[in-house]
Amino acid sequence: MPNKVAVLVAGSWGTALASVLADNDLDVTMWSRNEQLVHEINSMHRNEHYLPGIKLSQNIVATTNMQEAVNEAEAVVIVAPSAAMREVAHQLKSYWHKDMLVVHATKGFELETLKRMSTVISEELQCSEGQIVVLSGPSHAEEVVKRCPTTVVVASQDEEYAIKAQNLFMNSYFRVYTNRDLIGVELAGALKNIIALGAGMSDGLGFGDNAKAALITRGIAEISRIGVELGANPLTFAGLAGIGDLVVTATSQHSRNWRAGSLIGQGQELSQVLKSMGMVVEGIRTTKAAYRISEKYGVQMPITYQLYQVLFNGCEPKRAVEALMGRDPKTEMEMMTLETWEQWHS
Amino acid sequence: MPNKVAVLVAGSWGTALASVLADNDLDVTMWSRNEQLVHEINSMHRNEHYLPGIKLSQNIVATTNMQEAVNEAEAVVIVAPSAAMREVAHQLKSYWHKDMLVVHATKGFELETLKRMSTVISEELQCSEGQIVVLSGPSHAEEVVKRCPTTVVVASQDEEYAIKAQNLFMNSYFRVYTNRDLIGVELAGALKNIIALGAGMSDGLGFGDNAKAALITRGIAEISRIGVELGANPLTFAGLAGIGDLVVTATSQHSRNWRAGSLIGQGQELSQVLKSMGMVVEGIRTTKAAYRISEKYGVQMPITYQLYQVLFNGCEPKRAVEALMGRDPKTEMEMMTLETWEQWHS
Repeated sequence: MPNKVAVLVAGSWGTALASVLADNDLDVTMWSRNEQLVHEINSMHRNEHYLPGIKLSQNIVATTNMQEAVNEAEAVVIVAPSAAMREVAHQLKSYWHKDMLVVHATKGFELETLKRMSTVISEELQCSEGQIVVLSGPSHAEEVVKRCPTTVVVASQDEEYAIKAQNLFMNSYFRVYTNRDLIGVELAGALKNIIALGAGMSDGLGFGDNAKAALITRGIAEISRIGVELGANPLTFAGLAGIGDLVVTATSQHSRNWRAGSLIGQGQELSQVLKSMGMVVEGIRTTKAAYRISEKYGVQMPITYQLYQVLFNGCEPKRAVEALMGRDPKTEMEMMTLETWEQWHS
Repeated sequence: MPNKVAVLVAGSWGTALASVLADNDLDVTMWSRNEQLVHEINSMHRNEHYLPGIKLSQNIVATTNMQEAVNEAEAVVIVAPSAAMREVAHQLKSYWHKDMLVVHATKGFELETLKRMSTVISEELQCSEGQIVVLSGPSHAEEVVKRCPTTVVVASQDEEYAIKAQNLFMNSYFRVYTNRDLIGVELAGALKNIIALGAGMSDGLGFGDNAKAALITRGIAEISRIGVELGANPLTFAGLAGIGDLVVTATSQHSRNWRAGSLIGQGQELSQVLKSMGMVVEGIRTTKAAYRISEKYGVQMPITYQLYQVLFNGCEPKRAVEALMGRDPKTEMEMMTLETWEQWHS
């Protein structure tokens, strides 16, 4: 009898990860509060809202009952929106036991506390953070369900758990690398969404590839800088969870963050954009969280600062992107210089 | 009377740089052996083959006489194909004097000697390599002539020359940063074309954004590794000339290297691709040079190796990209790991 894995909740990325696990001959039970969606998955093997046109494996079932989903699972994969993470983890506590591997794949912060997702989960499950694994990397759900070649990284402070997660997910089209820098992988995955928003905004304004490449290069420097402040290894930002994920998010129309940024660049209001997307756009919440973090730690984050002004203070996107492109000579110093890097490594 | 700058030769990038200089109120004289092109620039202010639909500044003139182009110029900008660099620099020697700033913007190696462009130029001009400036970064010519915001880096072993070049080119849409790592900037600019070819091939095969992001992440690691071996600062590869340029080259249809790779991925023969492009594709020559360099220094370059097999040994593109995606577990170790980075900085 194949082993069972629970996936909480049934958005596009959760469903894509469920498909990978199903391809690995695991029995997957997805949990969602949405009765109609649960019915659609069980009866039609589809999740049309999140992954239109995709037929899901027969190995995937769904339930609105979390106990039923988690019961006897060897692992639980949590892909809740960051805003719902604490509540979902809290509910999970009643059904979870210490031998059940916990992997999360959510990119964001808890806005009120500025905590990372693994901190929130471990607090609610009353376990050590070392027991939580994060999965991240350049991976559009739309491509993963079509079995396009994809690479991701799983990180845990305790390598044993990372290797367990690697064994769970790895297959011929889904390559899984391990990393010990949980903090770096979580921060890179969350913060890169800010840069993707900015890249979308630049595209929405009709600026070109040259401007976007400059933004991406400066963006990596900016999120590495704050990452170091929060305890990450800066080099994680040069890997799959950093540059890799930023490239795929900032240059692809699949990306919600890029798309939201692009619509804002075209002049749409934030409320209108959020309505028309019909899905959570983590980068917007993350911009708010990162803005607060940069204030708290006194680290300059010029891209985050400008985006915050556009999203929440009515600044014109054009003025913000121009400022980011360095019209003001002062911001030149924010460009990653050799000195900045050397400082990290001295 | 405005100062004069000479630009050798009149390809797309040379013409775009000439346009930037003309916007800075400099008198620009372009040199080309192509009489018809010289006539087109002088009479129509156009360079239709390389930059279709673009009207050039009246400040730009052209000549087939190099002496006339260089005479009384305060600076000479060389943008010859790498294969022609030694010959062009040799010819320049007769008209050049020590007070004339030399900036080159060519991305490649001399294939026979595996020398960098600044080495070739300084040998022919019989000056020190410290006197040569390289200009590089994420900059499609097509966008620069339309004055889209663009950032580049100028590097010289002698900072004074880099600052001169910065002052020459910098304006409101063309931001110029200086860097002291000439070797790193030259290597990053040349070697990234290999990764762009590979990314194009992956796209041509119909693999997705996830695969391309993995290739780009591994590509940066690979070219940084050989860069270090050749005397570069690995951190230059994380800046504009490295990641920045790679992102723009590997994800844009403007890029010749991406386009050539894409056609090869779609099953076209190399000779056919080169014919249909009608322009030099530096990445193809660079793949050959880098393959030889990796052999010479004993540094593993898996992407370069696979591309070499496709371009010159009849390997199927699909098999090569699959190998790059790490089907063979051995190649997993080529992924940039924290250890690799730490090694660089220990």
